[in-house]
Amino acid sequence: MARVQFRSPSTGRNVRAVLFDTFGTVVDWRSGIAAAVADYAARHQLEVDAVAFADRWRARYQPSMDAILSGTREFVTLDILHRENLDFALRESGIDPSDHDAGELDELARAWHVLTPWPDSVPGLTALKAEYIIGPLSNGNTSLLLDMAKNAGIPWDVIIGSDINRKYKPDPQAYLQTARFLGLHPGEVMLAAAHNDDLEAAHAAGLATAFILRPVEHGPHQTDDLAPTGSWDISSTDITHLAAQLREGSTGFR
Amino acid sequence: MARVQFRSPSTGRNVRAVLFDTFGTVVDWRSGIAAAVADYAARHQLEVDAVAFADRWRARYQPSMDAILSGTREFVTLDILHRENLDFALRESGIDPSDHDAGELDELARAWHVLTPWPDSVPGLTALKAEYIIGPLSNGNTSLLLDMAKNAGIPWDVIIGSDINRKYKPDPQAYLQTARFLGLHPGEVMLAAAHNDDLEAAHAAGLATAFILRPVEHGPHQTDDLAPTGSWDISSTDITHLAAQLREGSTGFR
Repeated sequence: MARVQFRSPSTGRNVRAVLFDTFGTVVDWRSGIAAAVADYAARHQLEVDAVAFADRWRARYQPSMDAILSGTREFVTLDILHRENLDFALRESGIDPSDHDAGELDELARAWHVLTPWPDSVPGLTALKAEYIIGPLSNGNTSLLLDMAKNAGIPWDVIIGSDINRKYKPDPQAYLQTARFLGLHPGEVMLAAAHNDDLEAAHAAGLATAFILRPVEHGPHQTDDLAPTGSWDISSTDITHLAAQLREGSTGFR
Repeated sequence: MARVQFRSPSTGRNVRAVLFDTFGTVVDWRSGIAAAVADYAARHQLEVDAVAFADRWRARYQPSMDAILSGTREFVTLDILHRENLDFALRESGIDPSDHDAGELDELARAWHVLTPWPDSVPGLTALKAEYIIGPLSNGNTSLLLDMAKNAGIPWDVIIGSDINRKYKPDPQAYLQTARFLGLHPGEVMLAAAHNDDLEAAHAAGLATAFILRPVEHGPHQTDDLAPTGSWDISSTDITHLAAQLREGSTGFR
């Protein structure tokens, strides 16, 4: 392992683990959720714009964690938040969730467990795995991340879900406790993410950072996160690019 | 995943994850530790029987956890216990650990991170991985189990170390919390182990069970664990055998 090690300019340490934000960075949640919603809608004769519904469901993601981040709500898993947020998105769409079978809605919410990786994700991660420890550093719970990996062939070495740390990003402990479980100094751990705010928090916690460009995570009209907004260690056009850069010691866009 | 599922006679549920005791069941700790001790002894001109020393070091394993299991000592990782037990084994061998460089003894204790699997382990686990979630269910801490897997190519899907649960086997919570992180009912999780007492505790906690015969874990004169002593769901001569039995629905020795 680690025949060639990339030295992080920001932490001054050799990177030993590359951990990934998952929703948006490794998997395309928008297409996957829209497909599951379209399927559900067809089976229940619902008139919904499935892509708009996926966006509405995901838009509740951050607000639903805020109460936990601020300490006014005790930690609950992302599975529970996704299920609550589904009810919220249904109501926003003029659909009363109590008119629907709760078990079937549970099943629909499990769509977050079986999202499809971007085409470069599995080849890029497989290349990285030869030299580095790879894993998610996601707000997903362990079973969600495990199901996703088994379903899509994502070759993680280790999965420390948010239900293990009982902290959501951007709480610094989400980053620091994960490094601790791996037996590594935070500066030996690199977060790779398509979201500048996630990288900002990881950097503040002392981790190395890599920006991964995902220009259509939010569809063709995306305006956020089209470029790195901080001095991250590396900026990559995708995960295979990141693997090549770590091998070659290069740090910028192609 | 899980095209064919084995139904556990004892739990009445289809097995979805097969989790393994690690020291002795997946890896040959005795040869690996003896080799590391022999190497250390040669470099320091020490006269020790390396295999006897490995046995002495391992003999402290269970006693060193007893204070934690009984609640009189707070949880510390197995890395810490292995390091303390090394000092104990040195003293038992008439060697004063304070005559040795502490960093070098730390390095020697890291031999537990890089043990070699039995020849059938990686092929058997690779076969199981196509149908089941596979992982360790070990008293090792996460970083120990991760280093071991990276070093030896053990293809775990997920690693929930004892430092995540902060419980050592045979505490029932060591088994139950692991199942919970995987999002599974305990009866959907099978413990595979070479040690009847571990299987006894897993069975009492509601898990499915598989005995793996490791007749030379303790060397050629081993007397314990040469046969299953309980009605475990499956008894296997090794891990490739277990994979075949789960595929075929057979349960006994060849």
